[in-house]
Amino acid sequence: MGKIYLDNAATSRNKPETVKKAILNYYENIGCSPGRGGYEDSLQAGRLIIEARKTIADLFNIDDLKQIIFTHNITYALNIGIKGILKKRDHVITSTMEHNSVLRPLNSLEKKGIINVDYIKCDEKGRLDPEKVEAAINKNTKLIILTHASNVSGALMPVKEVGEVASKNNIYFMIDTAQTAGIYDINFKRLKVDFLAFTGHKALMGPTGTGGFAVSKKMAAEMEPLIEGGTGSKSDQEEQPDFLPDKFESGTMNTMGISGLKAGIEFIKKIGIKKIREHEHQLGKVFLEGLNKIAEIKIIGPGNLREQIPTFSITGGAKDLGQLSFELDDKYNIMTRSGLHCAPFAHKTLGTYPEGSLRFSIGYFNTLPEIEFTLDVLKNIL
Amino acid sequence: MGKIYLDNAATSRNKPETVKKAILNYYENIGCSPGRGGYEDSLQAGRLIIEARKTIADLFNIDDLKQIIFTHNITYALNIGIKGILKKRDHVITSTMEHNSVLRPLNSLEKKGIINVDYIKCDEKGRLDPEKVEAAINKNTKLIILTHASNVSGALMPVKEVGEVASKNNIYFMIDTAQTAGIYDINFKRLKVDFLAFTGHKALMGPTGTGGFAVSKKMAAEMEPLIEGGTGSKSDQEEQPDFLPDKFESGTMNTMGISGLKAGIEFIKKIGIKKIREHEHQLGKVFLEGLNKIAEIKIIGPGNLREQIPTFSITGGAKDLGQLSFELDDKYNIMTRSGLHCAPFAHKTLGTYPEGSLRFSIGYFNTLPEIEFTLDVLKNIL
Repeated sequence: MGKIYLDNAATSRNKPETVKKAILNYYENIGCSPGRGGYEDSLQAGRLIIEARKTIADLFNIDDLKQIIFTHNITYALNIGIKGILKKRDHVITSTMEHNSVLRPLNSLEKKGIINVDYIKCDEKGRLDPEKVEAAINKNTKLIILTHASNVSGALMPVKEVGEVASKNNIYFMIDTAQTAGIYDINFKRLKVDFLAFTGHKALMGPTGTGGFAVSKKMAAEMEPLIEGGTGSKSDQEEQPDFLPDKFESGTMNTMGISGLKAGIEFIKKIGIKKIREHEHQLGKVFLEGLNKIAEIKIIGPGNLREQIPTFSITGGAKDLGQLSFELDDKYNIMTRSGLHCAPFAHKTLGTYPEGSLRFSIGYFNTLPEIEFTLDVLKNIL
Repeated sequence: MGKIYLDNAATSRNKPETVKKAILNYYENIGCSPGRGGYEDSLQAGRLIIEARKTIADLFNIDDLKQIIFTHNITYALNIGIKGILKKRDHVITSTMEHNSVLRPLNSLEKKGIINVDYIKCDEKGRLDPEKVEAAINKNTKLIILTHASNVSGALMPVKEVGEVASKNNIYFMIDTAQTAGIYDINFKRLKVDFLAFTGHKALMGPTGTGGFAVSKKMAAEMEPLIEGGTGSKSDQEEQPDFLPDKFESGTMNTMGISGLKAGIEFIKKIGIKKIREHEHQLGKVFLEGLNKIAEIKIIGPGNLREQIPTFSITGGAKDLGQLSFELDDKYNIMTRSGLHCAPFAHKTLGTYPEGSLRFSIGYFNTLPEIEFTLDVLKNIL
């Protein structure tokens, strides 16, 4: 058994061969910046970016590819969204299962006295009751932010129901798809989302340095850009252009990374999201069944794949979780992640604060023998 | 003669072979996120990031590698610096030769009534008189921002003199090294800089998606983070950590890109910055002499390599500059850039607004035959 990578919630380590090919193709044959010159190779880089936007727009069912914005990673996307839309006295509703990429920007705006935030408490498995969201709405509520699935318990959030609530009340709806894009169907229009943040380097199979967001035209028009600079457009003006995507994309794009991301999404489309999900769910089921048979282990989260993604947090046994994670890697080449997973409120909700949990997150390139071997190891060492 | 790339001011197209190797090594052998897991391969990614910080700290003569922050590109770095340090009623001094990555953030803060900006007028070649900077200082002056060299005229700015002025008056000093890092000596301490913004994908030979800044501890302590989120540190807190580099680095790093950037800078150190500069200056001299012999051409800028970098803007002849740039590419495979180069004030200063100029920017991988061929073509078609 080679190395077993079970930290797919952090980044997808193994990528399709075509992603590497796309990166090398840009590196060796294009190498120029899009929109920064009128020569053929620069235009070719520009076309590559447009094709990547199309690929993403198609994945999320977005009408106009200009609504797709590329950023450094999903954290930048969430900050640009949160800090771009919220103004003095705005009220925000979010859950207690959010990642620090949502919590920290909200917390700093709240501490400055700019906004008020309601954190809707999820249950001990990390599940959210959408009715509680609706009950928290007040006349100043500008934005509801929800992760699509927890990076700790794996719990899937009721984005469809909350989208309806947001839409009915004319409130912007933002979702963080870090753990779901590429594995679950995410339909921008059907979910009534205004701002969909995505990461490129997790299940979308792209390289690091990629991510971004899709934004409704209404919300985009009301947002202020957080990052301003050269766009290669309206260069005669000292104001940031007010049109998409340039309003939110300044400076040289990561064209090398984006070319890899495009190839990653093309791979996903070729295999089919359903097939990818089914494979991961199958492994997840075997893993859950095995975990349930080990008396020392407590599963933190829903514990079934109707309510969660194949990311599993556990506690249990006499061993320190950090020590256990180290031992799994050191002796058995199994890569996991212990601790708080940049989500302190989630662990408080789940009753695992401040110790945290040990997390196993499955990806498309994991295999059944890997899962079985991991279960055997856990049985033996706990 | 193959393709001749003379748009190095936009991005370095040709990179050392070791940069590709470093990218592939990360992609194939590491692939994990640094600081996001306790397993060996994640720690290896973490060590790679630390080594990259060391390489950059050494290049710019920075004491503590924690002062090196990685961002998406230099535009993000400048925004994080400008919007992080400036508060209500602050006064800023800058020049009329700045890029939109400086102009646009300043302009938006000024339009909101937060800051006041003095744009010190440069002469018709783009040169700045440092005494004018000193004369513009008032009791509210918080920050002086200067490009190290214009991306339009190539004019080198008196950063040493202005650094003295800033230091004497206890004002933060920010420089934009987009056009100089990797070709000119930039000594953070000797130049008395507080914030040094760098791009990774130009003369530092790294891939796209890289850049960042070096910051003095004093200025860093006074800055607010623009982007907040998961740092893999202090995960129990909903506040962004207040220590470097985590205060300004959130979300998954572009470890693949940074590994390439590290290799790029190592290449530069191996060759030697002086040797790189001498090669580019030699080609620049030949190019300048040749341009001077073509009657139709007017050189926009100092016109000598004591006062400028080997980036040359021209106007002249009856031909439209966009058409000329297109023809150079289409018929002769020579890649240049015409227009305003994301620097409208610079073109106003140089008297080339709104038509712009045609820019030729030389890089280390250009050769003498390429320069001679380009001159021959210009002679023939003008």
